[in-house]
Amino acid sequence: MSVTAALTRGAMLYEGKAKMVFATDNPELCVVLYKDDATALNGLKKGRIAGKGAINNRVTNHLMRLLESRGIPTHLVDELGDRETLVKRVTIIPLEVIARNIAAGSLAKRLGIPEGVPMKRTVVEYCYKDDALGDPMVNESHIIAMGWSDEAELESISSLSLKINEILKDYLSGAGLTLVDFKLEFGRLPGGGIVLADEISPDTCRLWDAKTGERLDKDRFRRDLGGVEEAYAEISARLLGVS
Amino acid sequence: MSVTAALTRGAMLYEGKAKMVFATDNPELCVVLYKDDATALNGLKKGRIAGKGAINNRVTNHLMRLLESRGIPTHLVDELGDRETLVKRVTIIPLEVIARNIAAGSLAKRLGIPEGVPMKRTVVEYCYKDDALGDPMVNESHIIAMGWSDEAELESISSLSLKINEILKDYLSGAGLTLVDFKLEFGRLPGGGIVLADEISPDTCRLWDAKTGERLDKDRFRRDLGGVEEAYAEISARLLGVS
Repeated sequence: MSVTAALTRGAMLYEGKAKMVFATDNPELCVVLYKDDATALNGLKKGRIAGKGAINNRVTNHLMRLLESRGIPTHLVDELGDRETLVKRVTIIPLEVIARNIAAGSLAKRLGIPEGVPMKRTVVEYCYKDDALGDPMVNESHIIAMGWSDEAELESISSLSLKINEILKDYLSGAGLTLVDFKLEFGRLPGGGIVLADEISPDTCRLWDAKTGERLDKDRFRRDLGGVEEAYAEISARLLGVS
Repeated sequence: MSVTAALTRGAMLYEGKAKMVFATDNPELCVVLYKDDATALNGLKKGRIAGKGAINNRVTNHLMRLLESRGIPTHLVDELGDRETLVKRVTIIPLEVIARNIAAGSLAKRLGIPEGVPMKRTVVEYCYKDDALGDPMVNESHIIAMGWSDEAELESISSLSLKINEILKDYLSGAGLTLVDFKLEFGRLPGGGIVLADEISPDTCRLWDAKTGERLDKDRFRRDLGGVEEAYAEISARLLGVS
């Protein structure tokens, strides 16, 4: 079946806070549509960031192509348009994997560390994806006992996440950006094996200007700092050459 | 230096919610004194449980002797009296290690599981001992990045905790008690190596009557269930033959 045949957008499979996912004619592929909708604080804060959908779509694909070229398997198949991308259909592992290079957000609060303090070693955290429970932080022992993943898969997830961190940190540093922390999601392919799924964007990464420390990510929205659209456009300009 | 010389109680080294620790003439030993004071909800709830100090002292020593006989190193040296025990002086590793066989308390809430549901595998959690931060749950990655322990020591802590769980679960089952979950603390000896420290008592374990499911632990105090002293006395009677 050709990729073109897959362009026929079928039933909506899922609608999240920032994306919709549609079936295609090919059971192994689906289409992700990025929205401008923004939520924070587990959905308590709602808004729109004009242009965000298109920027997140293109930034995600740009970074996933980079990762693929460095040996990281991703769900990316083809960018279909401004806001739409064809991806492999996977079963999402119900975990948010968070890698942290510098203390910020919930980590700073949890451990009583000022934001901006570098961690001596990259920290990897897991949260169980469940809005009703507030995406609680869990450890590997919870994950295995609950059957959300197993030891071997978690080992892959953790080592892939650390590799992704090294590649992105290095690449973003070349664009004058400090990768403070970021969230990943992984999916299982029908034939076995896992791939990086979801997105990598200013919605899911903390990105600070390397010189000024200015926040160029969703924290501008979360914390009412203003200049939200401008921050997303700045990331687009630095990574894609267009804003 | 003889143990008798160590009986001279020196300066108070530490006062916690339920215990005081005193220096002795021997720099390698100290005396733990168990109090009747009870706190819960990170100190927000305060009270007294008559007889608790003596029961926790004797129950702890009884269980630590059992563990020693099964190859688990502990800080226990000698029971000095009703409420006082001579122990090895250690540097406490600033972690609460929690082993859970059955969902209850914060785990039940965090994962949205009803209390009483058995876990498919024993869960081990770590909390960073810091009252001001509310003893936050942390994972191994936080612990190593913060320098609170290292990979090898955590491996020992985790494997000792699982062994302790098997020994205690089995022993307590013989006394008609279900070991739902419990908290451990470990200490470093001056010469290297770690030992089980702190206490193992109805303050630090959830113990349910195996037949009726009745709670025979500090949850009676935390949750205002009444019969608090009676529950502690019941544990003492079942484990020590005296109440």
